Amino acid sequence: AAGARVLRGCVHKPRTRPESFQGMGAAGLPLLDEARRSTGLPVLAEPLQPEDIDGLRGHADALLVGARSMQNTPLLRAAGRSGMPVVLKRGLAATYDEWLGAAEYVLAEGNRSVILCERGIRTFETTTRNTLDVGAIPVLRERTGLPVIVDPSHAAGAAAWVPALALAAVAAGADGLLVECHPRPDTAWSDAAQAVTPAVLAEIVAATEMLAALTRSPRCEDLGGCRDAIDAVDGVLGQLLERRAELVACAQRAKQARDLPVRDAAREAAIARRVALRAPRLGTAGAAAVMSAVVDACLVAAAPVPA
Amino acid sequence: AAGARVLRGCVHKPRTRPESFQGMGAAGLPLLDEARRSTGLPVLAEPLQPEDIDGLRGHADALLVGARSMQNTPLLRAAGRSGMPVVLKRGLAATYDEWLGAAEYVLAEGNRSVILCERGIRTFETTTRNTLDVGAIPVLRERTGLPVIVDPSHAAGAAAWVPALALAAVAAGADGLLVECHPRPDTAWSDAAQAVTPAVLAEIVAATEMLAALTRSPRCEDLGGCRDAIDAVDGVLGQLLERRAELVACAQRAKQARDLPVRDAAREAAIARRVALRAPRLGTAGAAAVMSAVVDACLVAAAPVPA
Amino acid sequence: AAGARVLRGCVHKPRTRPESFQGMGAAGLPLLDEARRSTGLPVLAEPLQPEDIDGLRGHADALLVGARSMQNTPLLRAAGRSGMPVVLKRGLAATYDEWLGAAEYVLAEGNRSVILCERGIRTFETTTRNTLDVGAIPVLRERTGLPVIVDPSHAAGAAAWVPALALAAVAAGADGLLVECHPRPDTAWSDAAQAVTPAVLAEIVAATEMLAALTRSPRCEDLGGCRDAIDAVDGVLGQLLERRAELVACAQRAKQARDLPVRDAAREAAIARRVALRAPRLGTAGAAAVMSAVVDACLVAAAPVPA
Amino acid sequence: AAGARVLRGCVHKPRTRPESFQGMGAAGLPLLDEARRSTGLPVLAEPLQPEDIDGLRGHADALLVGARSMQNTPLLRAAGRSGMPVVLKRGLAATYDEWLGAAEYVLAEGNRSVILCERGIRTFETTTRNTLDVGAIPVLRERTGLPVIVDPSHAAGAAAWVPALALAAVAAGADGLLVECHPRPDTAWSDAAQAVTPAVLAEIVAATEMLAALTRSPRCEDLGGCRDAIDAVDGVLGQLLERRAELVACAQRAKQARDLPVRDAAREAAIARRVALRAPRLGTAGAAAVMSAVVDACLVAAAPVPA
Repeated sequence: AAGARVLRGCVHKPRTRPESFQGMGAAGLPLLDEARRSTGLPVLAEPLQPEDIDGLRGHADALLVGARSMQNTPLLRAAGRSGMPVVLKRGLAATYDEWLGAAEYVLAEGNRSVILCERGIRTFETTTRNTLDVGAIPVLRERTGLPVIVDPSHAAGAAAWVPALALAAVAAGADGLLVECHPRPDTAWSDAAQAVTPAVLAEIVAATEMLAALTRSPRCEDLGGCRDAIDAVDGVLGQLLERRAELVACAQRAKQARDLPVRDAAREAAIARRVALRAPRLGTAGAAAVMSAVVDACLVAAAPVPA
Repeated sequence: AAGARVLRGCVHKPRTRPESFQGMGAAGLPLLDEARRSTGLPVLAEPLQPEDIDGLRGHADALLVGARSMQNTPLLRAAGRSGMPVVLKRGLAATYDEWLGAAEYVLAEGNRSVILCERGIRTFETTTRNTLDVGAIPVLRERTGLPVIVDPSHAAGAAAWVPALALAAVAAGADGLLVECHPRPDTAWSDAAQAVTPAVLAEIVAATEMLAALTRSPRCEDLGGCRDAIDAVDGVLGQLLERRAELVACAQRAKQARDLPVRDAAREAAIARRVALRAPRLGTAGAAAVMSAVVDACLVAAAPVPA
Repeated sequence: AAGARVLRGCVHKPRTRPESFQGMGAAGLPLLDEARRSTGLPVLAEPLQPEDIDGLRGHADALLVGARSMQNTPLLRAAGRSGMPVVLKRGLAATYDEWLGAAEYVLAEGNRSVILCERGIRTFETTTRNTLDVGAIPVLRERTGLPVIVDPSHAAGAAAWVPALALAAVAAGADGLLVECHPRPDTAWSDAAQAVTPAVLAEIVAATEMLAALTRSPRCEDLGGCRDAIDAVDGVLGQLLERRAELVACAQRAKQARDLPVRDAAREAAIARRVALRAPRLGTAGAAAVMSAVVDACLVAAAPVPA
Repeated sequence: AAGARVLRGCVHKPRTRPESFQGMGAAGLPLLDEARRSTGLPVLAEPLQPEDIDGLRGHADALLVGARSMQNTPLLRAAGRSGMPVVLKRGLAATYDEWLGAAEYVLAEGNRSVILCERGIRTFETTTRNTLDVGAIPVLRERTGLPVIVDPSHAAGAAAWVPALALAAVAAGADGLLVECHPRPDTAWSDAAQAVTPAVLAEIVAATEMLAALTRSPRCEDLGGCRDAIDAVDGVLGQLLERRAELVACAQRAKQARDLPVRDAAREAAIARRVALRAPRLGTAGAAAVMSAVVDACLVAAAPVPA
């Protein structure tokens, strides 16, 4: 599933005009079941009115309250009573206060599983479908303990701009992403322009995992937590080593062209010192040992295959 | 200079009301000279009218055309004729087209050194001073070859939110940042609320260098370029190793509490496989060698200091 | 009822936070009945979800779909099926297209009684609660035959600015107004700041009737229609004559102070010519006869009461 | 001049892109002189930088500071020092406070002749070129004694919508209008879509004079002032009488078709009472005398021309 952890499956779609495709309705529920079974992933679905929630029960694992419904108070209350996690999208012209006020309607029913979803606001700039308000992330961090995720697809409105917005969101501290993906975007029944391919989704997932490993303070409350955090760091280490190996191959080709020797002891020492400065826990010796292994492995990788 | 590469020194300030501090004017020019001399950094200064540019010559290295002046066409033409690099801030309600149109006035004078600076747009949301439009970055990448930098300070309006916006900008692909910094922000003569301390600026610079190393395709046209790119990767490697050492220390404490052995051969093998998957150029053996050195160094670092 | 033709009585209120007053709910329905009985006016009430519409039947004469519900498609469809007239407020960031798209949901159910209500949009300017978009009126005139009314109260957000916005709306061509009024605004349970007193409402009604008489093309399809239109013109004539009499009294005092004669034949002739130019159907003689009567009546009114 | 009282003649034009027509520059000054001579009207011209003001002296009577220049503080100061009246347009995303702050720069130079010009703000709605903020008028009335005028042309962006916005502005209390007009709009060198014809301008002027006569409290400090105010009232009276004559002609045709008598004494008495209620200064007798003359004149006008 290209790195996705939750599937969005909306059988009810709020559309601007009545003649547009309005979703499959109840007829789509078996498809949600099948998607859930075949992927093993939980499903997020959007109700448009309180009675839709009963219909989704057993087919969906979490509810999405869309931007157009952010202040639909009967729907918010019913979502709260459902006990299911609720992803609450920001209305397209909602202030932070109004958004948190809407969350209060869910929380007031005793449902603590509310996830806020920034999806871009409406501004004078119409090149992008909406304007992604990344500032929402640090502001909400201060004002609430609720998780904040971002939908870069509705903000961008065009697939080409989705990765940049996704990375920006994670860098600003978002807890997750809601990305529209389609195996053949040009054939999507709605929002075709903004759906990315599974390959692009996989790249976004890899990049955001790397960002998260670098920028988040991991919770290491027990051995399992520590190991998960170490695994995340190692994942990024792997990506960095791959990139380094590629750069060393380039450097070696440049050296060959100028008849320079493969190794340069002074530079290798400088490299070890540079890393030791950034990793004081390892000490000079630890950093030197690691970088020696790194330099060797990269040189081996860069060596021309013998004929 | 906390990682800064250019100093902003504005002796003319466009203020909302005439009774506000309007900058030091020509009396401030010797301060620009001194700042330039003592730091060795180039200085960026803002003219408000064509004749200010002549006054700045010899004291400043680049010109800042502020948001309020984005469509001041005589100023744009004069900045173009100056031959100095021009940082062109986006007007607070300017579309991409209008912004690029303003850049055309500079370019039309034969000055190709135009740098676009996104600084947040004016929207209905007033918690942040402006709404940072990160979407501008991928859109402008498509439409122009001009570099795009971001001013997270005017967008945030509050120092606490500046780092998140700075990281978001770099993650989205910005080529640089323009950050307001003050050794004692509460005593700043203008924009006190949004100035970060030098310590915070240094953290922002470190984090953005790491992001840039991870997310940008380096230009490796010659040996020097390759080495710069390798150094950037190694800088991030150092940060990751430091984090990893800290996590391993946590894990070891958790193991000690449960009387578990220090090493776990099966997990070490899994770690090597994980990295090998992400770094196929290194091959299984190369990845194993590097991770073996990493695991050893982290364990040494985690070992309790002998009494 | 201070000139009002319809009463708004909302027993369900969509509020930003759950702890705010949410309306009286079903307990308020007898109050709607009483208001309807005692005033003889039809009642407009706001449902928040489809099932509210059944509860309102028999107590309300028309439905208000509020700004927050503009894209609540199940509610729009149910309002359409109700057969009651539907006042559809514009969402606070809805484009004209989206607004007309929402109206289509009601129309698609066979309900042709849709009235569009502009109530201000959300912009960067927050001094007024919203920004009244008077441009909506001529644009919608072109795009649809549906009536367009305006809510100046939610746009202004402050009672003092409501009359100016109300007059602007009618001058721009609005077919009606939705004005919040309270006998003692400071004691209102919601939106206290923007409620006008009944006395101010009466002034707004008088002024808008005058404007409408002057600026609308009356429909004179039968004698009754013609007479209604003539009555409207005469109402304005009355107001103008009152103002003229007051001005003549001022002028006479100024003349007395300078010992000038009461009448001035040349000026009276000029007055008749001025009016004849504007009223070519009356001809010179008709205009002269009317203005002679007007001048005489004003002079009599201006004459000092004999001691 | 179709009712215009001032001509706008901008020889310098701030355009979005350098390849657009930038105005005639100094070469256009003789045209300003000729326009001023041939019409006898004062000329309003827009400088883009301080030095333009010296060039305009002797050719223009007042300065226009455009929306793009609203926060060009050197220009504002120079306009202040010029001693000429300054029309200060609102920046397209300027708050009221920023706009008044800009006015302070002119006032601070000792120039009290500042006229504020609302021209629409930039919002998400792009059907109209900008969104006319009529709320600015009552708000500024409270906050400043400076006159407020409105440019409906830039707000509408299309000639067809200009009259509605013009009337709305005057109804909301604007002190004047700045309307773009062209004898053949389709051949205009800039802003062709929003220019009205002289015939439409004349209609706008007539309608706004009527509105102003009805809704403004005239200043009657001396005989001249009183007479001007009476003339304005009479101008509206003329328009109303013309409309009434037209309606009576319709009514008479309807009566003829049903063989009803030309006059109806009961209705005529009711008409006199209606007017007497609105014009208490005239008294019953005065109102009756005036309306008798009005009814007679309208009936004469409505009588079929004898064969």
